[in-house]
This record gives sequence, C-alpha cells and structure tokens, in this order.
Amino acid sequence: MSTTDSLWINGEIVPLSEARVSIEDRGFQFADGVYEVIRIYNGKLFALDAHLRRLENSAAGIQLPLPVNAASLKSEISKFVSRAAIPDGMIYLQLTRGVAPRNHAFPDCKPTLLFYARTLPPLPDQPAAEGVKLLSVPDERWKRCWIKSIALLPNVLAKNQALAAGADEAVFVENDVVTECSASNLFAVIDGRLFTHPVGPKVLPGITRALLFELAPSLAISAIEQPFGESEAIAADELFITSTTREISWVAQWNDRPIGQKQCGPITKKLYAALRDRVRSQTA
Amino acid sequence: MSTTDSLWINGEIVPLSEARVSIEDRGFQFADGVYEVIRIYNGKLFALDAHLRRLENSAAGIQLPLPVNAASLKSEISKFVSRAAIPDGMIYLQLTRGVAPRNHAFPDCKPTLLFYARTLPPLPDQPAAEGVKLLSVPDERWKRCWIKSIALLPNVLAKNQALAAGADEAVFVENDVVTECSASNLFAVIDGRLFTHPVGPKVLPGITRALLFELAPSLAISAIEQPFGESEAIAADELFITSTTREISWVAQWNDRPIGQKQCGPITKKLYAALRDRVRSQTA
Repeated sequence: MSTTDSLWINGEIVPLSEARVSIEDRGFQFADGVYEVIRIYNGKLFALDAHLRRLENSAAGIQLPLPVNAASLKSEISKFVSRAAIPDGMIYLQLTRGVAPRNHAFPDCKPTLLFYARTLPPLPDQPAAEGVKLLSVPDERWKRCWIKSIALLPNVLAKNQALAAGADEAVFVENDVVTECSASNLFAVIDGRLFTHPVGPKVLPGITRALLFELAPSLAISAIEQPFGESEAIAADELFITSTTREISWVAQWNDRPIGQKQCGPITKKLYAALRDRVRSQTA
Repeated sequence: MSTTDSLWINGEIVPLSEARVSIEDRGFQFADGVYEVIRIYNGKLFALDAHLRRLENSAAGIQLPLPVNAASLKSEISKFVSRAAIPDGMIYLQLTRGVAPRNHAFPDCKPTLLFYARTLPPLPDQPAAEGVKLLSVPDERWKRCWIKSIALLPNVLAKNQALAAGADEAVFVENDVVTECSASNLFAVIDGRLFTHPVGPKVLPGITRALLFELAPSLAISAIEQPFGESEAIAADELFITSTTREISWVAQWNDRPIGQKQCGPITKKLYAALRDRVRSQTA
C-alpha cells in the first residue's frame, strides 16, 4: 500500500480504510483531544518543529502528556513522509486521551496518537485571481481557542453557515471585536501596517500567522497584535486570512461589502511572495 | 453475549469490545454529534420520550437529521433493553454526522447512530447521607449549551479541576451568574422557593430538571427560572444538583463554604421523594 493510504496509530501502520478506534475512545465520546495539520511541500515537512511545539502546548492545555517525546514523534512522522510519494500534501495528526469506560474523570489509560497523509494541490506562486468571501458570525466558541482541540463543532457550524450563505469562510465577531475565522487567522492592512488580534482565549496561535510576524520586518512592514472592530475590518485597505493549508488568501468581500480595491493588495502580495520564498528555501 | 456487553450501531448488534468507528468519523475528528443518557429502572426505560425529543432538538441544533424516525428508534432501544438483564442502569446513545474525508463542510454521508447499556447501582429511597462538594469555575464554554453535543472537552476539564480540588462537581459561574454544573443542573432553595437558571445558551434542558418543574406545584413549591449570583447560591437555604444518572444530590459545600444546615434540606427531601415516587410509578 502507498503511504497516503496508510495511517500510523500508536506505533503501528495500518491501511487508512481499516483505521478504527473504539467507540469508547475519549476523542469520540468527549472531544478529549488535540490535533495538528502539517504541510508537505516537495515531499518535505514544513515548519514541523513549530507544529510539534504547538501540539505540546495544546496537550498541556488539556493536561494530556504526549505518549512519545517530541523528538521520537518527529522521527516517526519524518520516516512516514519520506516513504510517501506525495510532493504536495499534509499530515493530519490527532492525539486523544485514549480508551476507557465513559466517565468525565480522567482515566488511567494509554493515549491514542495517530497521523496520516493527504495529498493537496501545490500552492501557486501567485495569489489566486479570486479573493475569498467572508460571512461574519457571532463568536460563540469557548474561551480557550489557543488550544487546538478537536472540539470543533462550533467551527464546523460557523463554516457551514458561511458556505450556505455563499461565502467561503466564517469570521468570528465578539462584542464588535474581530477575533479569527473558523479555520484561519485574519489580518488587516490599515495605512500600511498589519494588524491581527492577539492569540489567547479567542485566537489560535497559527503557524502561518507566526511566520508572517517573522517575515514582516524584513519587508519593512509593521505587524501589530491588536484587536480591531468589524467596521475597521470592512474599511481596511487589505484583508487576508492565513492557515497551514491555504497559506495566504486575500479577502474580496465581507458579507455584502467589497474589501479594498477588489483585488489582492500590494502588501498582501509582498507577504505572499515572502512566504513562498521561505517555503521554497526550507523545502528545497 | 449479554446485552450489556453488546452495542447497537446503525441497525447491527455487535460486541461492545469490538465496537469501533472509522478514525474519519466526524464524531472523532470534529465532535460533530450529539448524545443522550437514558435511565433504566426495574428493567424499564424512564422518560424515554423526553430524551428522544431532546435528541431531536439537539440534532436539529447542529443541522443533523435523525437517520431513523423517533418511533423506530424508540422501538429499537426498547427491544434492546427488554432483552437486557439489567434492572438498574442506563442507555448511552450517540449520533454523529458519519464518516467522510476530513473537511469542515457538511459531507453527504450516512450518520453514525449507536447505543449501548451500562449497569448502575440502584438509587436509594432516601437522599445520600453525604452531600456533594462543588468547586466554582469560570464558565468558558460555548454559547449553545442547550445542545447536548459531544464537544464535552470544556466540561471534562472543569469536572477534573473540581476532582483535583477535592470537590465532586464543578459549578460554572459567568459574570457572577451561576449557570449549571459540568454534568448536572443546579437548583437553589431560597425562602421556600426553588430557583434555577433558565435553559438556553449556557444551560442544558435537563430531563430531571424539567421533571422537578412538573412535580413542584403538587408539593406547593414555587419553581422559578431566574438567574442568581454566586453569593446568593452560597447563602441559599438549600442547594442541589440534578442529572439523569444522579437524579438529585444535595450540596453540602461550595468551595470552602458550607451550604445551609450541612444536611439534606426539607424541600430537597420532598422533591427527592416525589421524584422517586414518579420513577416507581412509571417503571413498576
């Protein structure tokens, strides 16, 4: 079997189509787990260390020790990917507290750790011709969004509300403060400077988000963690969203309002190019 | 195999120990599902209709149509339980959106519906000698707690925070308003009247909770849905919590403060007895 059809689970490799967990796995009954999505470019893992650090933070946030240390896990994932024949794709990794008779109290059991690969189309060198459309929805999620937990039902409902309205992604707004999107972080360009909400109760520490903070100074762009309101977002010169799978997508529309010049803006383009350069240099 | 060792899943009965779901089940990857816990007394299901109505409401709340109609489901559960040899126990039922390659967008797939039985010790005719201890924690959950979803990670974390502090249950407080507990509703007796927070964004429509509203008038007790603060709760004459598995448990302590007379109060006792009578009459 090819690696894209197989799955690593607790040290074993099994066909993905046969990969099952007990219905008493706490990931299934309690959403008691965390996850990561790691990009593969040119057959190589991108930003793996940053993803594993975030995994450790998320797991610590739910008092779930990693069943293997980060170095061993890195080696297992790397071996798995190096045997894969996929130039462009991703690793989906999930860690749950494991299998035990249903009870809220933490059981004494072995965690479930699994990962598998999926192919993805390669990212283009230039930003897409079409921007994404956002639908704003009330941020009704819990207050520990910095934990990348599998309790994703609120995100799923928001995303589908956006899709049903003809938009591509839902953007969360709480007390007129724009937090993040259902599966991405949001950035606004206002008067040449880059703004995004600080990470914390309502914002995930996105890996692509952090990379842009690393890259912005070299482009002489000020990047500022600061909350902003919905009207500021709509009036921004440029808006874009970031995630591991989409990198950077420029925003063309917010509900029924066009954003900026209805094309990918100059600062978004610079950041897009810098990020592509970074990806190329690290996955050559 | 006896029925307590078996599980009904999508119309099939399999041994519980072999009951597995795909790792791509949306219950496992997205917490995209809902559940119910239904009590069995004297071999009979208690308040089954109310639980199935709530299941339908929860499922509608996440836009998930039941894969079988409520009447068929009722018949399947009843058949399953009538074959069981458990006088006292519960049915755990879970419904998820089903198996599909991981993507937030709702897939076109068949939901996963399963249920199984667990034995429980019979409930005593008198309230327990010992009251429960509550630990108050900030209510950081999402705002659709009226949906009995499997996205229970916030409840699991709160419950374990309480256990680690030597308490039995966590009580959620938001902006000094007491909402509910991690796996139960909370009632306060103040000047002879019964108070509990209205159901809605932060409170599940508990089945036992609703039963008490039915029973209170016949005991000449006023039952009022009205939010109250933490200091009012601590100063209450009596406090108790309700859930399907515990029915009514009187509260002895709130953090380090004793509640009431440090024994099960007279109004709690009346409600406890009325609820036991109701259970007996409906499961004779």
